[in-house]
Amino acid sequence: MSLNNKRVILNSRPSGQVTAENFAMDEQPVPELSDGQVLVRNIYMSVDPYMRGRMNDAKSYVPPFQIGQPLQAGVVGQIVASNNDGYKEGEYVTGMLNWENYTVTNGSGLDGTPLRKLDPDLAPLSYNLGILGMPGMTAWVGLKHLCDPKKGENVFVTAASGAVGSVVGQIAKNLGCRAVGSAGGAEKCALIKDRFGYDQAIDYKAVENPIQAVHQAFPDGINCHFENTGGPMFEAAIMNMAFHGRIALCGMIADYNATLADLPPGPRGMMVLVGRSVKLQGFIVFNYPDQCSEWIATAAQWLNDGKLKYVESIADGIENAADAFIGLLSGKNIGKQIVRLADE
Amino acid sequence: MSLNNKRVILNSRPSGQVTAENFAMDEQPVPELSDGQVLVRNIYMSVDPYMRGRMNDAKSYVPPFQIGQPLQAGVVGQIVASNNDGYKEGEYVTGMLNWENYTVTNGSGLDGTPLRKLDPDLAPLSYNLGILGMPGMTAWVGLKHLCDPKKGENVFVTAASGAVGSVVGQIAKNLGCRAVGSAGGAEKCALIKDRFGYDQAIDYKAVENPIQAVHQAFPDGINCHFENTGGPMFEAAIMNMAFHGRIALCGMIADYNATLADLPPGPRGMMVLVGRSVKLQGFIVFNYPDQCSEWIATAAQWLNDGKLKYVESIADGIENAADAFIGLLSGKNIGKQIVRLADE
Repeated sequence: MSLNNKRVILNSRPSGQVTAENFAMDEQPVPELSDGQVLVRNIYMSVDPYMRGRMNDAKSYVPPFQIGQPLQAGVVGQIVASNNDGYKEGEYVTGMLNWENYTVTNGSGLDGTPLRKLDPDLAPLSYNLGILGMPGMTAWVGLKHLCDPKKGENVFVTAASGAVGSVVGQIAKNLGCRAVGSAGGAEKCALIKDRFGYDQAIDYKAVENPIQAVHQAFPDGINCHFENTGGPMFEAAIMNMAFHGRIALCGMIADYNATLADLPPGPRGMMVLVGRSVKLQGFIVFNYPDQCSEWIATAAQWLNDGKLKYVESIADGIENAADAFIGLLSGKNIGKQIVRLADE
Repeated sequence: MSLNNKRVILNSRPSGQVTAENFAMDEQPVPELSDGQVLVRNIYMSVDPYMRGRMNDAKSYVPPFQIGQPLQAGVVGQIVASNNDGYKEGEYVTGMLNWENYTVTNGSGLDGTPLRKLDPDLAPLSYNLGILGMPGMTAWVGLKHLCDPKKGENVFVTAASGAVGSVVGQIAKNLGCRAVGSAGGAEKCALIKDRFGYDQAIDYKAVENPIQAVHQAFPDGINCHFENTGGPMFEAAIMNMAFHGRIALCGMIADYNATLADLPPGPRGMMVLVGRSVKLQGFIVFNYPDQCSEWIATAAQWLNDGKLKYVESIADGIENAADAFIGLLSGKNIGKQIVRLADE
């Protein structure tokens, strides 16, 4: 069997906005397996905002992508050949692999974590990159464990229609809280209410005075805030926190495309955090493995009970991966952005 | 005995900078005591940055000062007449009283907290407004309990020559940490090293690139940051936090004089707090009564052992209270700013 492998490689580092020129494609034959290796046929890959950070040559919690080398992503695939006793042909796995059709590994992802076997009957395979994967785990760790919401509390979520935010709101509702989300445009605002059960939506593109708009949505203040974007909604959230409020700082998409020289201004009014004794916790989901396992069990149950809805945007083919990622950074996607690399 | 009482009253609310016109003085006879009341001869009063917030008519953790009424302050005084079994003539007490020479109370401060009796042999009386009072307690709660520094960790403190910052650095050193402070001008920078034992000082007025300057002082990142000022040094601290760093957000003097319309920009680069899993906790010392008692015992011991130095700026007379407060807001004082209202 002679297979060819198409890959997306980092062609140049972006300065500011990511463009198509930052990516290139190549194609090469899949190598023979050595002892201990497996060949994974990649079926779905995830594109996520954090990848923007890895395109810079900067110290971060994960190493930067290398120019001339493939970018990496969370992938769901199938073992199609194995010289490793731990994995059998036909098994489905997930892990950090390359943006490519086939990956040869020693049984671990490229971050050193062993490939995790998936139960294909638990949920659709692609869910393991979203609601059952990193974005879902992120929502759970940030809201449940860092904000620790009490029944009846008020929860605010930015980027509420995104892969993470759409889950945060549903967790909030399932825990008995009131959930308000911000999103861009009428379509996304309708989606988060109708599909994800948010009690109220704030269209950040239509709002003239974010501080006032958030105040109207939270006359008694925000108890738990889940921050995904940075920018004016983050500032408005800070100024409207309730006494003893908690903020889970998950991401700041507004910052990802910026270099130090043109970083956007930060949130004003942080003095409010003093007077109201607010805690803010930045976090990376990888540091909470126990809570991640807890989430998979919780989410599988909730999906089964119809207490969790999930929306994906699926782009087709490795050739469209870069476009899907660029669209994600500008907010074009609805729900979790996935790239389908092959039929199941 | 017929006594006259001079008071400082709030004449108008400031818009922006506080000026002398925001204050007025009056004088009136001290009233007769009713049953249960005590007459306190006020000896020292404290002026503190947080009072700026109470000059606004805004919701905060303490109610605003009222126009036409005296401002309030932490005061050390002596009971000179008592119709209250709880207090005897001659006893020294501290509590929240008015900016005035004599206060009549029912045995409680104006915030409802009972007047606390002082041991005049423990330390100079005025210390109860500073290192043994609210500023010292604030330093202890923020650094020891919220940042929880480990031996050998790196601690950064803004406004390091101030009433709180000068204590934070000494606590850090006594706990085995390395301490770097920022302060304005060569004199204050020398003071924090020579007098308060900081390992290194950053003169924020002389620094061209705050982010770089803080990076040079913390090549391995900041483990614990104690924030008093807001502004460029706060931003530089955020961008230089170490993995799992902790920030105690105590005050933001830069914000106190601002109205919403002209609030200074907030710190850029908060994305760093995500990638490095940093916690930031805003706090008010009044919420930590047990830790405050712990501090009085700790500080009295450390003072006795020579492990704690203390510097006061003392203004003389109720007539100079407003000036002392205005000077404090612009950073003129060195150490804790006190107003002496009467001889001991």
